[in-house]
Amino acid sequence: MTFSYYRNIYLSDTDAAGVLYFAQGMSICHEAYEEWLNAQGVSIQTILKEKKFALPIIHGEIDFFSPIFCGYRLQIDVKCVPIKDREYAIAYQVFSTSSPDKLLAKALTKHVCINPITRKRVPLPREILGE
Amino acid sequence: MTFSYYRNIYLSDTDAAGVLYFAQGMSICHEAYEEWLNAQGVSIQTILKEKKFALPIIHGEIDFFSPIFCGYRLQIDVKCVPIKDREYAIAYQVFSTSSPDKLLAKALTKHVCINPITRKRVPLPREILGE
Amino acid sequence: MTFSYYRNIYLSDTDAAGVLYFAQGMSICHEAYEEWLNAQGVSIQTILKEKKFALPIIHGEIDFFSPIFCGYRLQIDVKCVPIKDREYAIAYQVFSTSSPDKLLAKALTKHVCINPITRKRVPLPREILGE
Amino acid sequence: MTFSYYRNIYLSDTDAAGVLYFAQGMSICHEAYEEWLNAQGVSIQTILKEKKFALPIIHGEIDFFSPIFCGYRLQIDVKCVPIKDREYAIAYQVFSTSSPDKLLAKALTKHVCINPITRKRVPLPREILGE
Repeated sequence: MTFSYYRNIYLSDTDAAGVLYFAQGMSICHEAYEEWLNAQGVSIQTILKEKKFALPIIHGEIDFFSPIFCGYRLQIDVKCVPIKDREYAIAYQVFSTSSPDKLLAKALTKHVCINPITRKRVPLPREILGE
Repeated sequence: MTFSYYRNIYLSDTDAAGVLYFAQGMSICHEAYEEWLNAQGVSIQTILKEKKFALPIIHGEIDFFSPIFCGYRLQIDVKCVPIKDREYAIAYQVFSTSSPDKLLAKALTKHVCINPITRKRVPLPREILGE
Repeated sequence: MTFSYYRNIYLSDTDAAGVLYFAQGMSICHEAYEEWLNAQGVSIQTILKEKKFALPIIHGEIDFFSPIFCGYRLQIDVKCVPIKDREYAIAYQVFSTSSPDKLLAKALTKHVCINPITRKRVPLPREILGE
Repeated sequence: MTFSYYRNIYLSDTDAAGVLYFAQGMSICHEAYEEWLNAQGVSIQTILKEKKFALPIIHGEIDFFSPIFCGYRLQIDVKCVPIKDREYAIAYQVFSTSSPDKLLAKALTKHVCINPITRKRVPLPREILGE
């Protein structure tokens, strides 16, 4: 099932070339991922406080197909792809709500599950995979 | 004694209005503060790890006198102003190395010393004041 | 009349001290300002494209009264204070929606109106003051 | 020939998980790219002002092999890989100066050359490829 996150583009998201700064595109996708976690009852703040596990990103990538300007209202579709028991990927598709059929960008993040103290890999908690 | 920090302005520091994004100006001053701490042997990472005390900012302000563009090389002069035993301020003056007599911006941050667990104020360690 | 902007705190807003990074607090207030402009029909993207005028910030300041953590849902109240015909200030009050009576932070930005080509001050367009 | 950029990690680069925020890793690699451009006499600010061409990023990716903490001093090696006449890639390798043999992260950005007004692709200026 796809989860959608809506987000306006602000001045701070842009750079002097007049468009969304590319790395900020990755950051906005991560916001969508946090809202997706939240929607299934997973709180990042609780994970950070309890220190039972952490979910660092081992890979991030983004492709831009069209420039994204200040004032755009983005719709970001989020989809979780389990890879194996200690790793999963999140796929993002970025649209503007004013032309929802035109893909502006797509992104992917890969996450592993570790013990935040030892930083060794541990099995992924079931709730993360949206099961 | 004044400490100087040098920093180039990158695309990510700017916004679509073509100049340094104002809040990023505050962030760059904080980099100067971290380098100043470092210069007196105070490591932020050690403070974060040991959790003996934390130095949250209770006030930040910045004034801009001239636009700051991508490619500028900034010189930021840092000065510590002790206020009382649990509070201190850092004053920043921002110049471009290409016209070092023209003040581009000035900023100020006020910090308190707290116990990071209880978040109650505690006396300021001597090394922070550069004594 | 007060305008309110709602915004969740994401991991990218925080730093290794575990709370909202102070300069990011200023940036989030600026988002509230952009939404307030938007609510009265003023589009930043149109201002940037038409280049008739620009509204640079000459002063920004923020006071923090309580730490702001990842996962907080902020309510930011925005109020415009006209100063004179070429200058205005925006005052911000920051609350968490979970305890709306407790002021977490307050901020202020001062803006001038300039010609973006000559960078000289020009009179402020009426629509900016919400008249 | 490899170009190296040196950069300390500041509090603003980190998040509440205690490490470098992943998208900020991409942004720091872009700083290295800007310094590399600069080293061959290409000024981003001049490109932005003259509007003869623009070099938007169409793809960015990063892999993390080890956590990067506040206070680290990074060495980022930059290498340009021409792809075809209107496209090029920049490859980045990220080390800590305290253990220069251990690769902490690697990244890649792909850039195209466009006319910033029409946003159509145009041939890449020779100076960009470091020829």
